[in-house]
Amino acid sequence: MNGEIIAVGSELLLGQIANTNAQFLSKQLADIGINVFYHTVAGDNSNRLKSVIKIAEQRSNLIILTGGLGPTKDDLTKETVASHLGKRLVLNEQALASIQSYFQKTNRQLTENSRKQALVIEGSEILPNDYGMAPGMVIKTKECVYMLLPGPPKELEPMFLKYGKAALLNGSKTNGKIISRVLRFFGIGEAALETKIEDLIDEQKNPTIAPLASDGEVVLRLTASHSDNGEATRLLDEAEKKILARVGQFFYGYDSSTLFHVLSDKLKKAKLTIAAAESLTGGLFQQELTAIPGASTIFKGGVVCYATEIKRDILKVKDETIREKGVVSPECAAELAENIRKLMSADVGISFTGVAGPDSQEGKPVGTVFIGVSIAGKTEVKEFQLGGTRDAIRLRTAKHGSFLLLKVLKTYRPDVS
Amino acid sequence: MNGEIIAVGSELLLGQIANTNAQFLSKQLADIGINVFYHTVAGDNSNRLKSVIKIAEQRSNLIILTGGLGPTKDDLTKETVASHLGKRLVLNEQALASIQSYFQKTNRQLTENSRKQALVIEGSEILPNDYGMAPGMVIKTKECVYMLLPGPPKELEPMFLKYGKAALLNGSKTNGKIISRVLRFFGIGEAALETKIEDLIDEQKNPTIAPLASDGEVVLRLTASHSDNGEATRLLDEAEKKILARVGQFFYGYDSSTLFHVLSDKLKKAKLTIAAAESLTGGLFQQELTAIPGASTIFKGGVVCYATEIKRDILKVKDETIREKGVVSPECAAELAENIRKLMSADVGISFTGVAGPDSQEGKPVGTVFIGVSIAGKTEVKEFQLGGTRDAIRLRTAKHGSFLLLKVLKTYRPDVS
Repeated sequence: MNGEIIAVGSELLLGQIANTNAQFLSKQLADIGINVFYHTVAGDNSNRLKSVIKIAEQRSNLIILTGGLGPTKDDLTKETVASHLGKRLVLNEQALASIQSYFQKTNRQLTENSRKQALVIEGSEILPNDYGMAPGMVIKTKECVYMLLPGPPKELEPMFLKYGKAALLNGSKTNGKIISRVLRFFGIGEAALETKIEDLIDEQKNPTIAPLASDGEVVLRLTASHSDNGEATRLLDEAEKKILARVGQFFYGYDSSTLFHVLSDKLKKAKLTIAAAESLTGGLFQQELTAIPGASTIFKGGVVCYATEIKRDILKVKDETIREKGVVSPECAAELAENIRKLMSADVGISFTGVAGPDSQEGKPVGTVFIGVSIAGKTEVKEFQLGGTRDAIRLRTAKHGSFLLLKVLKTYRPDVS
Repeated sequence: MNGEIIAVGSELLLGQIANTNAQFLSKQLADIGINVFYHTVAGDNSNRLKSVIKIAEQRSNLIILTGGLGPTKDDLTKETVASHLGKRLVLNEQALASIQSYFQKTNRQLTENSRKQALVIEGSEILPNDYGMAPGMVIKTKECVYMLLPGPPKELEPMFLKYGKAALLNGSKTNGKIISRVLRFFGIGEAALETKIEDLIDEQKNPTIAPLASDGEVVLRLTASHSDNGEATRLLDEAEKKILARVGQFFYGYDSSTLFHVLSDKLKKAKLTIAAAESLTGGLFQQELTAIPGASTIFKGGVVCYATEIKRDILKVKDETIREKGVVSPECAAELAENIRKLMSADVGISFTGVAGPDSQEGKPVGTVFIGVSIAGKTEVKEFQLGGTRDAIRLRTAKHGSFLLLKVLKTYRPDVS
């Protein structure tokens, strides 16, 4: 079964909202083995909507339409589909009763245009709306399945999960089970990673291997298709093993877990606490760590030492260091990491100092970054030259810090301290 | 000119990301008077991409393609467009030089597939990529303008704003001028705001008034249409005046400026420095302030006082306060705000303490938040009960702090201190 998603609504074409419904549905359809080859967005215009439905029918046999089921005049999705299929709209008693009870519950009078929402395409299967008024519909013809869903994600998502999915699975054939696994890499570019595993990407048909870069990271999405769940998992394991044999040193985690999640877990397991001294990142590293519930078991606190005098007066960076090496220097990073660890009585101290831009600093170019890691009396500093905007440099700095600390923790033995 | 946006990328069809590029471009095109009637998404497949380009040509005379310009094999947008238009790909020396310098800056070796990014469609106008490697392209034929932009929003957005827009405005006719203005509100819900100005929304046809809620804020988008720029601006001014007469106390800024931008500007104008003590927000407030270039003129630094002992030992919150009132208390917030101001020798101290969840703390429910503001020897504390997830509570706390401080600054006179 090949699916296509048509979103209806001028607010999408004006850029007022993003088409997150298409994203949600695509993910859901992939999970049940339905390929999605196209998304389309059309405005609240019957002729243009009809034309995109006609195009969709030529290339897909499942068409999901989202939006345009509401009470107002510019809501015309079911009218357009009905007229296109040569069907009438009929009053659905169940939907009307549900709309009436909705109005009673909120102590309001049923309006005439709300009653319009109880009209459905004749012969359609109704998908109840537990979180709003407009019901969804499924119409099956010989060539194609049409599904109409309401636009608000709060109504569409539960409706699809509870009723829509089942309507598709009943009596329709899917192309087998599709399972995905995402491998996450840091410290290597997309092109370099692909070069290292190019032959695997070319040879592999099941699972397929697709690289994707974002925010200075690269992920590989492995997608296996098999009627048997266990066999699909085995195919994924095998491909993962081959990939990690080549680029394992850049691998840090699976699926949606970020570097900060992985670091947080590692610290928790090692029973270590951390404190941070942040200059150019301005609190970003700490805010990422504390975004994770239960951060208090590993995180003590930190100092955002943005001004030079904060580095000197509160974090006790030596006058000499500031005068002779500058605040953007390995010496300053080392003192910051060591002193924040001591100041906060933490097991690990981490520091970030550098030039986020837009202007250079101390004669050092934008993107110059020093990260210090202090643990068990030993302090390590690494220098980076990062590209991109101010935002990108700050985020990448925080990620490099997490990745560096993960590496240090790999060889850390508590008995050495 | 009628525009259509074609996004290329299997990651969109798998639901891994939403098509936010289409949203961004649609908004931009509306602002310069170009109608967008369709969005399409196709995967990394040359035949299917060609077919959607053919469909687009029949209904639009501006086709913007996003994504698929990267270095890897599944990036095939320019190859497909070139082959469709019967044009060759040629090496662009300027793009190659920029790619080479990017690699040099980050101390890496130029890979062969990265060099591929310097290939452009012959006869195209090049849009430089200031934040990445793949250049954009504009190809004008008799019937249609094709614009190719890179997929990552961090590259696409600045490229379109700086180069793409100008390329479209040069020698293309727009359908009349559409001007938008966004009014930003905080501390009032969407429904409440809408109720207060319902009649204005209903009556107003030019400009139209559209409310939209996100992240605890409400924005009103005013869109005026007029052949004359000055007249369109006058219509916007008039509508804004009517709206602010009713809900002006919740208004804080225009267009894309966030609460943090507005606060930053206000502090700069008042020549005041700030320091922050953050508990539940974990650095989020400071990271938002320092995300703005030039933060060093107003921001000294701060302490993330996550653990109770950091509040006591470093920020000198009294033992008695912690014992008798708890760390989630107005007394603790007041001491934190005052003491961080003194510790960092700043003009303003701000503090955040509360329960972000998922668990309650000191018997206080999730969402209990105290914010302290200390300025010129006077300290003010406000209590909040916030709803939502851990992330939402943290972000709203930082926003409430900014809004509270903006209010305090309104009545602040430096001579009082």
